[in-house]
Amino acid sequence: MYAPENDQEQAVIIVMNHGTPDASIDRVVAEIEKMGSKAHLSRGQFRTVIGAVGEEGTLDQNHLASLDGVEKVVPIMKPYKLASREFHEDDSVIEIGGGKVPKVKVGGTHAMCISGPCAVENEAMLYKIAKHVRDGGATVLRGGVYKPRTSPYSFQGLGLEALKWMRACGDELGMPICVEVMDTRQVADMEPFVDCFQIGARNMQNFDLLKEVGKTRKGVLLKRGLAATVKDWLLSAEYVLSQGNRSVILCERGIKTFEDSIRYTMDISSIPVAAAWSHLPMIVDPSHAAGKRDFVGALALAGMAAGAHGVIIEVHYCPSEAQCDGPQALLPETFKSLMGQLREIAKVTGKQFADIGELAAV
Amino acid sequence: MYAPENDQEQAVIIVMNHGTPDASIDRVVAEIEKMGSKAHLSRGQFRTVIGAVGEEGTLDQNHLASLDGVEKVVPIMKPYKLASREFHEDDSVIEIGGGKVPKVKVGGTHAMCISGPCAVENEAMLYKIAKHVRDGGATVLRGGVYKPRTSPYSFQGLGLEALKWMRACGDELGMPICVEVMDTRQVADMEPFVDCFQIGARNMQNFDLLKEVGKTRKGVLLKRGLAATVKDWLLSAEYVLSQGNRSVILCERGIKTFEDSIRYTMDISSIPVAAAWSHLPMIVDPSHAAGKRDFVGALALAGMAAGAHGVIIEVHYCPSEAQCDGPQALLPETFKSLMGQLREIAKVTGKQFADIGELAAV
Amino acid sequence: MYAPENDQEQAVIIVMNHGTPDASIDRVVAEIEKMGSKAHLSRGQFRTVIGAVGEEGTLDQNHLASLDGVEKVVPIMKPYKLASREFHEDDSVIEIGGGKVPKVKVGGTHAMCISGPCAVENEAMLYKIAKHVRDGGATVLRGGVYKPRTSPYSFQGLGLEALKWMRACGDELGMPICVEVMDTRQVADMEPFVDCFQIGARNMQNFDLLKEVGKTRKGVLLKRGLAATVKDWLLSAEYVLSQGNRSVILCERGIKTFEDSIRYTMDISSIPVAAAWSHLPMIVDPSHAAGKRDFVGALALAGMAAGAHGVIIEVHYCPSEAQCDGPQALLPETFKSLMGQLREIAKVTGKQFADIGELAAV
Amino acid sequence: MYAPENDQEQAVIIVMNHGTPDASIDRVVAEIEKMGSKAHLSRGQFRTVIGAVGEEGTLDQNHLASLDGVEKVVPIMKPYKLASREFHEDDSVIEIGGGKVPKVKVGGTHAMCISGPCAVENEAMLYKIAKHVRDGGATVLRGGVYKPRTSPYSFQGLGLEALKWMRACGDELGMPICVEVMDTRQVADMEPFVDCFQIGARNMQNFDLLKEVGKTRKGVLLKRGLAATVKDWLLSAEYVLSQGNRSVILCERGIKTFEDSIRYTMDISSIPVAAAWSHLPMIVDPSHAAGKRDFVGALALAGMAAGAHGVIIEVHYCPSEAQCDGPQALLPETFKSLMGQLREIAKVTGKQFADIGELAAV
Repeated sequence: MYAPENDQEQAVIIVMNHGTPDASIDRVVAEIEKMGSKAHLSRGQFRTVIGAVGEEGTLDQNHLASLDGVEKVVPIMKPYKLASREFHEDDSVIEIGGGKVPKVKVGGTHAMCISGPCAVENEAMLYKIAKHVRDGGATVLRGGVYKPRTSPYSFQGLGLEALKWMRACGDELGMPICVEVMDTRQVADMEPFVDCFQIGARNMQNFDLLKEVGKTRKGVLLKRGLAATVKDWLLSAEYVLSQGNRSVILCERGIKTFEDSIRYTMDISSIPVAAAWSHLPMIVDPSHAAGKRDFVGALALAGMAAGAHGVIIEVHYCPSEAQCDGPQALLPETFKSLMGQLREIAKVTGKQFADIGELAAV
Repeated sequence: MYAPENDQEQAVIIVMNHGTPDASIDRVVAEIEKMGSKAHLSRGQFRTVIGAVGEEGTLDQNHLASLDGVEKVVPIMKPYKLASREFHEDDSVIEIGGGKVPKVKVGGTHAMCISGPCAVENEAMLYKIAKHVRDGGATVLRGGVYKPRTSPYSFQGLGLEALKWMRACGDELGMPICVEVMDTRQVADMEPFVDCFQIGARNMQNFDLLKEVGKTRKGVLLKRGLAATVKDWLLSAEYVLSQGNRSVILCERGIKTFEDSIRYTMDISSIPVAAAWSHLPMIVDPSHAAGKRDFVGALALAGMAAGAHGVIIEVHYCPSEAQCDGPQALLPETFKSLMGQLREIAKVTGKQFADIGELAAV
Repeated sequence: MYAPENDQEQAVIIVMNHGTPDASIDRVVAEIEKMGSKAHLSRGQFRTVIGAVGEEGTLDQNHLASLDGVEKVVPIMKPYKLASREFHEDDSVIEIGGGKVPKVKVGGTHAMCISGPCAVENEAMLYKIAKHVRDGGATVLRGGVYKPRTSPYSFQGLGLEALKWMRACGDELGMPICVEVMDTRQVADMEPFVDCFQIGARNMQNFDLLKEVGKTRKGVLLKRGLAATVKDWLLSAEYVLSQGNRSVILCERGIKTFEDSIRYTMDISSIPVAAAWSHLPMIVDPSHAAGKRDFVGALALAGMAAGAHGVIIEVHYCPSEAQCDGPQALLPETFKSLMGQLREIAKVTGKQFADIGELAAV
Repeated sequence: MYAPENDQEQAVIIVMNHGTPDASIDRVVAEIEKMGSKAHLSRGQFRTVIGAVGEEGTLDQNHLASLDGVEKVVPIMKPYKLASREFHEDDSVIEIGGGKVPKVKVGGTHAMCISGPCAVENEAMLYKIAKHVRDGGATVLRGGVYKPRTSPYSFQGLGLEALKWMRACGDELGMPICVEVMDTRQVADMEPFVDCFQIGARNMQNFDLLKEVGKTRKGVLLKRGLAATVKDWLLSAEYVLSQGNRSVILCERGIKTFEDSIRYTMDISSIPVAAAWSHLPMIVDPSHAAGKRDFVGALALAGMAAGAHGVIIEVHYCPSEAQCDGPQALLPETFKSLMGQLREIAKVTGKQFADIGELAAV
């Protein structure tokens, strides 16, 4: 159980403007004490700095920032708790699946490969691709049935019918399934069918959706928003965790920068940073970052080398027929060969991809 | 009525890789012809470029990009239609309000000022602030009842009860109201009460929410996403417009950049760019861009000077008590004085803020 | 005289890692005391924060950051001094020119318009454009003789000969001249001819060049680097100021962001931020930010409305013949009409552009 | 010899505004023909697109962009030539060193490790660190003698005397040396001593400096600018190459983004992108990207996995005493262990680090 009043404190540093009169400084100190905390002053010749440490939730930064003479309020404690290493020191190991399909682990020494088509276009293509990715080394099946498209005139997905195909296909091949959810109203409909909800980058701060999947007990693959800092991302994970769902998997898929040679800039440093700050497993999505299949392999290898716990990769046997994101899908044989390299890299960082044969045997 | 098959075409440029064999080029040409379009070749010594113009929706860029030898496919036509100047040459003038409150215009020569508290905290503070902003020159009242907060532990708003206070307050003071919606499930509940839905920056690509407000006939204030290009933004407007709701107001509120001296970087150039590409009215939100009241005035003036059709500004009579975003709220007297300067700037760019007395008289 | 030991102190906040043993905390305190400062501890249940205030230059942040258990060191004082409002409370008013040409002021209530061609292409075009911009309202003449071009195959400027034409033209028309310098070796050659050196965005952190122009007593127009924060920019100004040259004019010309609808994103907020932090005058360069003449006017107006002390604008009577940046040059008549609007905006923010007739008369 | 008139052509696409009159289109076509090229029209109902392919240097984009009715001009050919894969299909293998020190290769299958202190502080520390990094697996020695510092009050390096120590130390240990140059005036002084010039990120577009090192025949390690696209970077390489110096090594060291958890965002995708576009070898600098030693290892491994030809890493036996960038220096033992992992990763991507014993034996 999460009990913030016992396991966390809050600290802030208040920097006063140059030349602030003593009365204003006294007022800040008084306000801090009214909040039940103790203020520590460092008076310089030109500037005074005030530190305060108190019980979680008692120091109102907003109020402090509005007082006369305050230049800035710097929070020292991390604003997320359940997602933090302070709350849970060891790596979390999360299981996706169960029931008719094996449970697949991710986190700690367990690396996971999720693969499949971008969008489910029809039943036949789904089975064909699913067999290919299973054969190539994937243990979880992905496939979009609701598609978030920047244009209202683009293909928007086949909906629940396609989700049922996904479920049947996963069951037949022994693969848990991971499917994107876009709207709070879809959560209840999808819950009986999915093993893992995917939250897309554009919905990373759709807070109602985060709460809604937080109420389920399915896995949640949380993609990083295109303009989200690692801190923002962990706060979004906190939304899910705070509802009681602890099965959050972070997924780096690139951020927006000025570089225009590739679709998004995969922020490789987010992997060691998130690992330093949080116990949650983290995978990379080289397909969406690259936007072009030629660059998918290099980004996948880099992600694993930086310490990721796996990858999510789009595959299509005939990318030129795909209804969305075809240019980034790997051919099945390229995927299989890449998985061989990824297994080598994983060894260097002390991780291992599961073998679907062994999983089935368990 | 919008009939894409009659009023729009689509053009793409296909750049082939250096050294692509003729067979691959022929294949691309054949595929373009299969799509019912004509291909125009420009053969260079090293590289071939193919142009194609066809009926809207017939040229499948995805398919073309997947063909052998294709380096890139450059779309030439804008992907949004209803939002474009090509579709509607003159500035759109949109009306917010009606019924018990006057209709307030924005667009063309009409400038609009929306103001009020960040969040509605209680009935008394709402009325107090509303009177202040009406007195200062605002003609539309804003106030959050559902608050999108990066942390699940922050104040999340008072919900429907606060919305009813907003409605009553707007009716009493003769001001249309603008309130943020965060979840598709809130749209139906809010519709009877609001004059204008606000879509927050983090929901700019919450496509289901865009469709849902698109089905209403209320105003939609569409804030630009933190990592959205002007093109992405107009595509999100297109989601609303394509459902039949033509009352979309764009709102620039800053983008994420490396600069850390201010909360977000207000992209001033988005104003003339959006005006060149689209007929929709556009306002600026200096409060959220600045994050600090000292910088709100300069950004508001800059926005109007760049050609915006108005501003949305947060005001609080006691910012240090505000439950969210207090540090950015202007004091009522500062707001009133800023409005004086904004009226002067508006004259220079050929626009005029309405006077609430005149509106009431109509 | 600048005497840092008397007029400035330095403060840092040291945040210790969660769970740091007391011995490490004691070591940090001991090191701070060894540096001659006093340490102030705020011990929380999980984390300790240490504040220290000392004489300028005595607190070695680098050393502190390397000690065991230190999570981060947050500097509290601004790292620039001569450029800061703390050093010089009132706006600096800087004069460019003198000798055969009038002195033109910028800063405080004085707004300055610098205009001319991007590059000096020949003597005739220079005189023709110079007369146009003088007639339109510019009081300082610009014109490039060394051109920083991203490609080595682009036109690189005509060098010293063109500089002499600039000097003669400025003298004849009574306009001080502002010319870009790119290389330390050019400073001595150019010094006898120019009234103001321009440091381009790509050289903003060419520290040797900054020192070299800092040794002269000519004006220095310091463009902001494409990836420079306002703090970095003021530190570059500090390089010039610390050599004894106090005539630095800041110039915002856009930063690199993900937005691709315009060449650079003009960071409008840098104007009020720089004004809050520094006493130096600041102008905007809408021509290079926009990269396209259609957007130059809106950015110029926005810059003045945000509080800039002027503009630098490129003009060409026949932009399609210009050897560089033709697409962004205004036609003389557009420039003149824009100046009329800029004068109106300047009034709103309490500034005034000088009239070249009055300057000549002085 | 480079002869652009024979081995390269140039192509542009000109997109006309919606509703441009025929006369303006005819004018564009006429101008293209006047330039000696052929225009290819694609007329749509609303918009016309014109393609043109011509001899290098004959199509003046600037002029075309300035013509009436032109919306944009899209260049199709890459603006760099000597740096491109089209010019040189195979990976370039570059040698650094010679004379008293062995030649060390980088490029193709050859991976290079450059290491040493950030700044040379005194002779003893230099030798001590140099022995450590040689022992750990580095084959090239780095060490700054001129330091580009954002603040004029920071340590600026020891200059030529320190360079002589570097030369003597490299000679004694059999390691070529790589030293940063900041000013055109330093090139001649440094040339007799260095094996490889380093161009820092802030000087990547100091075009005079690029030309000056281009005139030497020493190696040039070209760091990517903080706001430079891969294209900009290759254009800067082109400045060096066009002076006849073909020994350019690219070095990715992070770009500026909104993410604030790490100093710079290492752009991992720049590695496969640069490899696709250029034949030049490319290494990564995880020390400056990370700014904190905890993250250096993950970034180094990621860089090699993405296909880099090596690394440049800062090492210090006592980082808390370092005069600059101490927090990012690895301890000698950490460096040695990291090199072990890097050798493993290199194998996966078909590369190999040289052994200094074998080099000496050659």
